[in-house]
Amino acid sequence: MTDPAMSALLGPLFSSKEMRALFSDRAVIGRMLAFENALARAEVAAGVIPSKAASAIDAACKPQLYDAVAMGNAAGLAGNVAIPFVKALTEQVSRRDKDAARFVHWGGTSQDVIDTANSLGFREAAALLSGDLQKTIKGLVRLAENHRKTPMISRTLLQHALPTTFGLKLATEAAAFARAAKLLEQAVEYASVLQFAGAAGTLAALGRKGPTVAKRLSSELKLALPDGPWHAQRDRIANLASALGIVIGTAGKFARDICLQMQTEVGEVFEPAAKGRGGSSAMPHKRNPALSFQILASANLAPGLVASVMSGLVQEHERATGGWQAEWIALPQLFLLASGALERSAEIATGMEVNRERMRKNLELTNGLIMAEAVQMSLREKIGKTEAHELLEEASRKAIRDNRHLIDVLEKDARVAKVMTRKELEKLFDPLAYLGSADDFFEQALKTVRRYLQEK
Amino acid sequence: MTDPAMSALLGPLFSSKEMRALFSDRAVIGRMLAFENALARAEVAAGVIPSKAASAIDAACKPQLYDAVAMGNAAGLAGNVAIPFVKALTEQVSRRDKDAARFVHWGGTSQDVIDTANSLGFREAAALLSGDLQKTIKGLVRLAENHRKTPMISRTLLQHALPTTFGLKLATEAAAFARAAKLLEQAVEYASVLQFAGAAGTLAALGRKGPTVAKRLSSELKLALPDGPWHAQRDRIANLASALGIVIGTAGKFARDICLQMQTEVGEVFEPAAKGRGGSSAMPHKRNPALSFQILASANLAPGLVASVMSGLVQEHERATGGWQAEWIALPQLFLLASGALERSAEIATGMEVNRERMRKNLELTNGLIMAEAVQMSLREKIGKTEAHELLEEASRKAIRDNRHLIDVLEKDARVAKVMTRKELEKLFDPLAYLGSADDFFEQALKTVRRYLQEK
Amino acid sequence: MTDPAMSALLGPLFSSKEMRALFSDRAVIGRMLAFENALARAEVAAGVIPSKAASAIDAACKPQLYDAVAMGNAAGLAGNVAIPFVKALTEQVSRRDKDAARFVHWGGTSQDVIDTANSLGFREAAALLSGDLQKTIKGLVRLAENHRKTPMISRTLLQHALPTTFGLKLATEAAAFARAAKLLEQAVEYASVLQFAGAAGTLAALGRKGPTVAKRLSSELKLALPDGPWHAQRDRIANLASALGIVIGTAGKFARDICLQMQTEVGEVFEPAAKGRGGSSAMPHKRNPALSFQILASANLAPGLVASVMSGLVQEHERATGGWQAEWIALPQLFLLASGALERSAEIATGMEVNRERMRKNLELTNGLIMAEAVQMSLREKIGKTEAHELLEEASRKAIRDNRHLIDVLEKDARVAKVMTRKELEKLFDPLAYLGSADDFFEQALKTVRRYLQEK
Amino acid sequence: MTDPAMSALLGPLFSSKEMRALFSDRAVIGRMLAFENALARAEVAAGVIPSKAASAIDAACKPQLYDAVAMGNAAGLAGNVAIPFVKALTEQVSRRDKDAARFVHWGGTSQDVIDTANSLGFREAAALLSGDLQKTIKGLVRLAENHRKTPMISRTLLQHALPTTFGLKLATEAAAFARAAKLLEQAVEYASVLQFAGAAGTLAALGRKGPTVAKRLSSELKLALPDGPWHAQRDRIANLASALGIVIGTAGKFARDICLQMQTEVGEVFEPAAKGRGGSSAMPHKRNPALSFQILASANLAPGLVASVMSGLVQEHERATGGWQAEWIALPQLFLLASGALERSAEIATGMEVNRERMRKNLELTNGLIMAEAVQMSLREKIGKTEAHELLEEASRKAIRDNRHLIDVLEKDARVAKVMTRKELEKLFDPLAYLGSADDFFEQALKTVRRYLQEK
Repeated sequence: MTDPAMSALLGPLFSSKEMRALFSDRAVIGRMLAFENALARAEVAAGVIPSKAASAIDAACKPQLYDAVAMGNAAGLAGNVAIPFVKALTEQVSRRDKDAARFVHWGGTSQDVIDTANSLGFREAAALLSGDLQKTIKGLVRLAENHRKTPMISRTLLQHALPTTFGLKLATEAAAFARAAKLLEQAVEYASVLQFAGAAGTLAALGRKGPTVAKRLSSELKLALPDGPWHAQRDRIANLASALGIVIGTAGKFARDICLQMQTEVGEVFEPAAKGRGGSSAMPHKRNPALSFQILASANLAPGLVASVMSGLVQEHERATGGWQAEWIALPQLFLLASGALERSAEIATGMEVNRERMRKNLELTNGLIMAEAVQMSLREKIGKTEAHELLEEASRKAIRDNRHLIDVLEKDARVAKVMTRKELEKLFDPLAYLGSADDFFEQALKTVRRYLQEK
Repeated sequence: MTDPAMSALLGPLFSSKEMRALFSDRAVIGRMLAFENALARAEVAAGVIPSKAASAIDAACKPQLYDAVAMGNAAGLAGNVAIPFVKALTEQVSRRDKDAARFVHWGGTSQDVIDTANSLGFREAAALLSGDLQKTIKGLVRLAENHRKTPMISRTLLQHALPTTFGLKLATEAAAFARAAKLLEQAVEYASVLQFAGAAGTLAALGRKGPTVAKRLSSELKLALPDGPWHAQRDRIANLASALGIVIGTAGKFARDICLQMQTEVGEVFEPAAKGRGGSSAMPHKRNPALSFQILASANLAPGLVASVMSGLVQEHERATGGWQAEWIALPQLFLLASGALERSAEIATGMEVNRERMRKNLELTNGLIMAEAVQMSLREKIGKTEAHELLEEASRKAIRDNRHLIDVLEKDARVAKVMTRKELEKLFDPLAYLGSADDFFEQALKTVRRYLQEK
Repeated sequence: MTDPAMSALLGPLFSSKEMRALFSDRAVIGRMLAFENALARAEVAAGVIPSKAASAIDAACKPQLYDAVAMGNAAGLAGNVAIPFVKALTEQVSRRDKDAARFVHWGGTSQDVIDTANSLGFREAAALLSGDLQKTIKGLVRLAENHRKTPMISRTLLQHALPTTFGLKLATEAAAFARAAKLLEQAVEYASVLQFAGAAGTLAALGRKGPTVAKRLSSELKLALPDGPWHAQRDRIANLASALGIVIGTAGKFARDICLQMQTEVGEVFEPAAKGRGGSSAMPHKRNPALSFQILASANLAPGLVASVMSGLVQEHERATGGWQAEWIALPQLFLLASGALERSAEIATGMEVNRERMRKNLELTNGLIMAEAVQMSLREKIGKTEAHELLEEASRKAIRDNRHLIDVLEKDARVAKVMTRKELEKLFDPLAYLGSADDFFEQALKTVRRYLQEK
Repeated sequence: MTDPAMSALLGPLFSSKEMRALFSDRAVIGRMLAFENALARAEVAAGVIPSKAASAIDAACKPQLYDAVAMGNAAGLAGNVAIPFVKALTEQVSRRDKDAARFVHWGGTSQDVIDTANSLGFREAAALLSGDLQKTIKGLVRLAENHRKTPMISRTLLQHALPTTFGLKLATEAAAFARAAKLLEQAVEYASVLQFAGAAGTLAALGRKGPTVAKRLSSELKLALPDGPWHAQRDRIANLASALGIVIGTAGKFARDICLQMQTEVGEVFEPAAKGRGGSSAMPHKRNPALSFQILASANLAPGLVASVMSGLVQEHERATGGWQAEWIALPQLFLLASGALERSAEIATGMEVNRERMRKNLELTNGLIMAEAVQMSLREKIGKTEAHELLEEASRKAIRDNRHLIDVLEKDARVAKVMTRKELEKLFDPLAYLGSADDFFEQALKTVRRYLQEK
């Protein structure tokens, strides 16, 4: 892989250890062996190859027998990994049973083994991601419940808008992660299909036994049997890439908000502290969003990879010159980036520190102006719509000009004083009193999330 | 729109007339009016605004009342179309009923009207695409059936591989279009949701009546009720963009094969002829793939647009600064490109000219070498595996070196002559006799396609 | 519709009026006419066509004679605009001089007229952008000079780091815009080449007179003469696309900082106010970054378009099937997005409101911790390196724990009190006293910028 | 695993061995050490740190002292490689000279060491690419000269157009590679700048000595001194990414044409043969374009990576959260992909097999119709323009309808027979006689290329 994310130095910044292991050379070889082994068994069952051959093949299907370096160098020449792989496997089988060697990879083509090994790998990889997605979602749900009644300011276009609750913000995030997780599950299931169609997509070498072998092979590997070859029809792969892009982007949205809320001027939430993370002895006040910015780096890289896979859809005839080969880099890299992004998301969602006081304090930053609408709604019933509207506009302008709190401006206004006491005004200025459907939305969102979690 | 595809000059090259109409200014304004009109009705039903106001609003909801140029200029200043739109609507309502004017857009926010209008537009747009997808698929099915037994060469890495049938090639294409169509339908359904959450995502201005209004509004517009605001959670939009990318890429794969098959050296299929298309008086032999290369141009543009939408997932807090606004360009453009690509695909699929003779002739280009494997399989039973393998290798080398047909080389070979007559050899060289599971795959693929078509 | 070139509704949100005019259908036709007219003149000079023919052609080269709608519809069929365009021009010439009609477009091919017309258009478009780039840069320089001594906090990873000056921040932006402007100029100059090579890239129809005509044509149009046909070699176009991407991204960085500084919690700078922009009567405290988020939307779209053009480099033989045609959309769109982004950048750079007090206040948000390093540096000389380091670490921890200002903690520390008075401490806490090379960098940056401006 | 830097299995398919070594963990650490070492020397020279400290630092600057795995794991926590790297270096220095340890990385910030180490690496990497670019260009020039007079068909929109020469095709490729090489050189030079501005972009820790140290450091490392910090201004990096994209795309165009010309039906050129490449014993007629399709795979991946870097331009304040970090993956990957693509391009350009006979034969595929224009030009002088035009149209139609050679149709035409003998006709049908400016273009293109090569 020309993927620097796989280097010892950069790998841990962008991916999880488990995902790196899953896309290690050894594991890749293991999955190709799994295909060849199952193929041999399926062909024995269909009476295509002798059962003795399958035993010899089985004995040779041990990843540690193979030299990834030599195989990689030969692949560079041959144009794909399968050619030297099949050659090396054949040699290993030959050592055990000369006759059996001829039955290795019988009827298959390079793309059959590579695509099917990838199907197996992607399914495993998605299961890894699922773990961190669940952790993230559960963490957010727990936090959301704790903060169901924690008021905070909502921000549109990076400007204070009106009050909301931190609970709703978190529940909305949880629901987004649940939707993304579901998209990924569907995409992985959709892409978990066998590739087995031989050199020209006809399984010609198997005569009439193609369908029997394919069916058996698909059940051996627990991969769906597709309705035909998909050597050059990559919609399933593009859909998977896109689902990974959406998962990473969803984590990116979460991370961006964390970064914004961690700003020195905002200080509402913080990534969980850990030894060796984010601190700076020269700048003791800094608390760098080290988890979040790595998620954001992944979110920067993912769209380009998705675009590559989409470009690759335009393939030539029965096997592509470029579009297919590019997937070998793009898909593993998307999974790696997703693993890093979700591992970090889970860590934030389960360990985030929340500063309710700062949230409360930030609600006050506009001198009560965020409550102008609320007050106006209430005044309408007492002094009429038009007058209430004009009064609030005037008072707001005054509050801004004189840098005074709106409640103080209103209290001094005779028209208000006539109909409302300071106490009544104060009630109107309680952000928790102007939340509209926030709690309904909160409940609905968590309902969706719980339904999703139960299905797991 | 800064989309040159909407220009009179370039539009028809990249999009269908119907799709351009659907994203015309007039139609966009119409869908925003549909939202406001339905909102007023829903709020009357919920007792939020007086029924008289809804009548005045309804009367003002006529697209032809609005000046797109003025609205666009004001939008350039305001930052979105909804602000001048609501202002213009309010003025129109005010002319009819001064009091009613205050109830226009009640409780809504700019993003509510823009997103919901888009949901409505995207659904309509997808229906347009669906039409051309059906046409394409049905055309391919019809052709595939006609060519179930038409032998042709399969090409892997742009090299002749083994025989296949044109029917299987077409059935595989049809199945890919059917899968892409289904992905698009699912994505559109998934994205056909109401946006209605007010300035801060809490519907604060509606007090406790938010859910009631939202539910009513969603049923008025026949859009699903989401589990909460999705102002800054754009997974549905990204998934839709991606499905459009896959649809376009699927058409691109189809078009690339047409271009390749239309090559002067190949000449197997041709785009349907039409006056004013593809010909050249200076070069009478040319038959340009004018439909296909426009599909390919769309397939070149789509991945970048999908990437933009994916990048845009990383939004800020409750309304984004950039990520959301970019969708206004990217989504319509994807629909436009898809419309042009599918309109052309349908035209090719229903009018393609096929040259069976050239297909047959091309099968002969390698002097029978494409049948070497088939002959070897048969000879194995008569002279043993190892000998058959060596014999064929030798004969193939000889055929290449002397530029002779493999059958002639074999006929002259004493070892072959002993066990096979020329006639028997000729049978082995019949491409239709070495198709393996091609017909099974053909049937399976068409089964999938028919199931898809029946569901429509 | 007045001019269907670009949507009236969305156009002004993403592009300048001048740029929309430059890519209107009328203007596009005008540039194609300019090519044909100059070609005729060049061919007269080279003795290829009769001078009378050129006069008739000249008379027909009036954009208003042509019907963009009809031409676009025919283009949709023909596969490019040039075919119906040449046909329409020939008809117009024929009406004036039947004989002359045969000499229209003599020796040229569709791609010659389209590419050359684009070269002309891109050069004009770049000049438009240059105007706004100059305005932006000059505005930033003026502001930078005003704020050379305005202290503010620098922020790394969205956390307060150490003091800097607003002047340096602005000078750095100005230098970035100047570099981007220069990249664009170079790219445009590099791409301002004639395309004239005929149907097969050999100018065969002109016999041996090709070079003479080409040279003359290039000087007529003031476009450089390339070293050969570039019908399928698009590095110049890709480089231009990329320069536009960099210009837009540079504006995007500027806009992002404006958005961040306009945050309610930060409040350091504001976009210039204008009637109809950014305000909200319901939320009087809001001041939306309406200019900036539109720049950011363009910056979201540009990378995908650049990627499309890069993908398009992979062309087929002497004329591409898709890669070339996609440019017709991607390049104008990049210019349009750049025009909107730069028009807005210029407006911000020349009208930005700055709140020095908020900058000063924000410097205080960490209770003096941002000055810990500065104090430590100074203390080292008095009490030794190690002790100074430990003392500051301890004091910083105390300041954070007790939410006290670091200066107060230090003043109370006996070790400090022994060697420093409160006054001396206060001097150390002056952010302007710990700016290192900020002013040097400021000067260097502005020197670069001025050199750039002088070259204009 | 020997060196986990890049996957052993896939690396050789997409990159050169030398480039993998250059981006190995060991080499990356080496370049960071080079920065720190030079910094220490520069600070001694400027009187900032004691000379003894620099000696200890120098002694610790040996890559083999460092554990990339441990460093990578710590980086995953810290958020960048520089933090654990500086820590590890400090420990190594401390072992040698406790006092010196305090002077490690003095005044620098993480981004200074990472960016500068990258500047060093990118320059080296570009030099590697330059080697393969020269090889490719020289190979193409040599071939072009050999084929200056080799006629072949030019193909537009994948259809036969008119004759050209293979020499011109190759010269055009060579010129494109030369232009791309130059763009890359300019971009690398432009990006070969020092990053040294300290924690906040002000070099505050160095007091007034910042510029002196920076100047010295820049000359130590032979990197240009920028006009200020570019921590968050990444135009140079984006421009470099784009140049790499253009280089890869240029190779992609070359590779696509090779693939197309290698098609079984075309057979004009072949990749150089090599043991272990492209052959197939089951399909002896296949000659897979194994070098070309790997180039095309890289060309599929590059645009997405360029787009990522472009997106990353939009950075936050003085250090970005995501945009910068993504470069750590994208730039090395672009260099790796370019190395694989160019290594393969050089191999093709220097070893390509050419089949002149097939080129000649392919010219005949349209039964002489590609010469219709040439004949018409000549007949005009003898029978008048209009008649010549009509005659050729009629003859061409007849040739197509009856599948006869155009020359035979013309010979039998009384109007032609009257003015031309078969011999004269044959002359007109010589493709070498209708090449227009092909040879002029050939000379111009090679002139450009030679000028480029001489400058090296």
